[in-house]
Amino acid sequence: MILALAGGVGGAKMATGLAARLRPEELLVVVNTGDDFTHLGLHISPDLDTVMYWLASMNDADRGWGRAGETWNFMAALEGLGQPTWFNLGDRDLATHVVRTAQLKGGTPLSEVTSFLCRRFGIAHRIVPMSDDSVRTFVRTDQGALEFQDYFVRRRCEPRLVGLEFRSAESAHVSAAFAAALADEGLEAVIICPSNPFLSIDPILAIAGVRDQLAHHRAPIVAVSPIVGGRAIKGPLAKILNEKSFESSAVTIATLYADLIDGIVIDDTDIGLTRQIEALGVPVCVTNIVMTDSADRLRLADSVIRFAGSLRVRSHA
Amino acid sequence: MILALAGGVGGAKMATGLAARLRPEELLVVVNTGDDFTHLGLHISPDLDTVMYWLASMNDADRGWGRAGETWNFMAALEGLGQPTWFNLGDRDLATHVVRTAQLKGGTPLSEVTSFLCRRFGIAHRIVPMSDDSVRTFVRTDQGALEFQDYFVRRRCEPRLVGLEFRSAESAHVSAAFAAALADEGLEAVIICPSNPFLSIDPILAIAGVRDQLAHHRAPIVAVSPIVGGRAIKGPLAKILNEKSFESSAVTIATLYADLIDGIVIDDTDIGLTRQIEALGVPVCVTNIVMTDSADRLRLADSVIRFAGSLRVRSHA
Repeated sequence: MILALAGGVGGAKMATGLAARLRPEELLVVVNTGDDFTHLGLHISPDLDTVMYWLASMNDADRGWGRAGETWNFMAALEGLGQPTWFNLGDRDLATHVVRTAQLKGGTPLSEVTSFLCRRFGIAHRIVPMSDDSVRTFVRTDQGALEFQDYFVRRRCEPRLVGLEFRSAESAHVSAAFAAALADEGLEAVIICPSNPFLSIDPILAIAGVRDQLAHHRAPIVAVSPIVGGRAIKGPLAKILNEKSFESSAVTIATLYADLIDGIVIDDTDIGLTRQIEALGVPVCVTNIVMTDSADRLRLADSVIRFAGSLRVRSHA
Repeated sequence: MILALAGGVGGAKMATGLAARLRPEELLVVVNTGDDFTHLGLHISPDLDTVMYWLASMNDADRGWGRAGETWNFMAALEGLGQPTWFNLGDRDLATHVVRTAQLKGGTPLSEVTSFLCRRFGIAHRIVPMSDDSVRTFVRTDQGALEFQDYFVRRRCEPRLVGLEFRSAESAHVSAAFAAALADEGLEAVIICPSNPFLSIDPILAIAGVRDQLAHHRAPIVAVSPIVGGRAIKGPLAKILNEKSFESSAVTIATLYADLIDGIVIDDTDIGLTRQIEALGVPVCVTNIVMTDSADRLRLADSVIRFAGSLRVRSHA
């Protein structure tokens, strides 16, 4: 069984590749819910939705987020009512939010709601939230502490990031499936998807006990770099690295994860960084990690699975 | 000032005619909220929405309910999630429900939410719910007691109606504007719109004190018959009259309202019933009451206002 830790689009693409190569019982995708928020009374789980829509092949490939063939008449009416329109809610996507909100209000835990949605979307592989408890990412910026979506969507990550806070992470419990995976001696690998380490992966690692259990797990932990040729494939990672006075480089990713991972997958473009990363004690796999199409996703999934297998053999040797 | 008591489509059409003839401060439309219900976690006020959409000229004229130019992609997605689809929620209409639900949850009374929505929809005249408290219509049928929308929409009024229950009506308070109108000595008329007496008007009259205050008010109370030529203009009224062993006739409407009204407006078709109704002690105005277009609505509004004026002169004489 392989455990994948995922955020939004990068995580969704990686998970889609893995799901194409692994049987449903061989993969568990644990998704960041630090981005979740309540908007207009609706509980919205942006990363869970992105991963679900990708795995169900319902995603809009151009936008990256949301559903294919989406329409925006609800938004137009909402604007007519003078309501905030900075967070886009497609007419079809809205059904997911309304159903999730109603089920949560009825007392169903987020894991169960997610598994219900996955079943209805025809997703065979397991996608679970990192926790059924509320963990909320706040971004400390030069404009004050901002709720995640306020920072990320409304202000387009423009404020300078000073720090991050994952509220209630220390008192939250991991979801049952995540807990089982962390305790599973037979786990073959943990894959940290090419998501933003600060915004998408750190909230998962911040839940009480997670970092510790991963660090002591016998399964190899492999990160896939979200930085290629010094640039973030998507999103504000390069900007954030800069604000934190880090170099925007795969070396930085390896450094950030150094005490946790057993190997990192970087892009062919960055082959020149191999020695520098290996000097940190982190084995490197160099391959094409940019996932433009389905073939890219499959090839990367194969490389990552193979690389993790080689690390396992090494650690057991 | 004229007070109009309204249910759904019949009430909306009458109110639209009155609004075209009266200045905003001259009209208060009090709307039945016994039909309100919570569906998929959303607070839905079908009659308020119908009246608002009509007064804002946003209504779909063919369907009668809902918004013009509506789309149904949310519903399609909802069906994909295996959720109930018997109650139609248009993509644009949904914005009304989401905003209302969020504002109610935030503690804003329904009256204020309604006035906010009216303002945003550009409605100058005042539309208020009968109460800010929850009053819920239950229909006792041969299949048991059913929530109103379950009876009305889901089961298409097919169960045999045995009786009605307006839960919490006795403990509910009328909305502030309704209370003010009931206490207003200067009120010129109360118009009972051509809505279903059992399903739309009785819930309003059932609120503690309403029937009594109306009965003792000096303003003439005029009902417009929802029955023309023995048939209901819209909806299940004829079927319900039959189930209650009443004749489906304007005479029955006059009989039902006899202890409350000072006059009734019936259709030209029913001119032959005039004496029978007058024998009940109810003055009659005969005119064309079928509102097919805007000209019909204006003409009926004029007739009703004039008829109420004549009754006022008579009562003051």
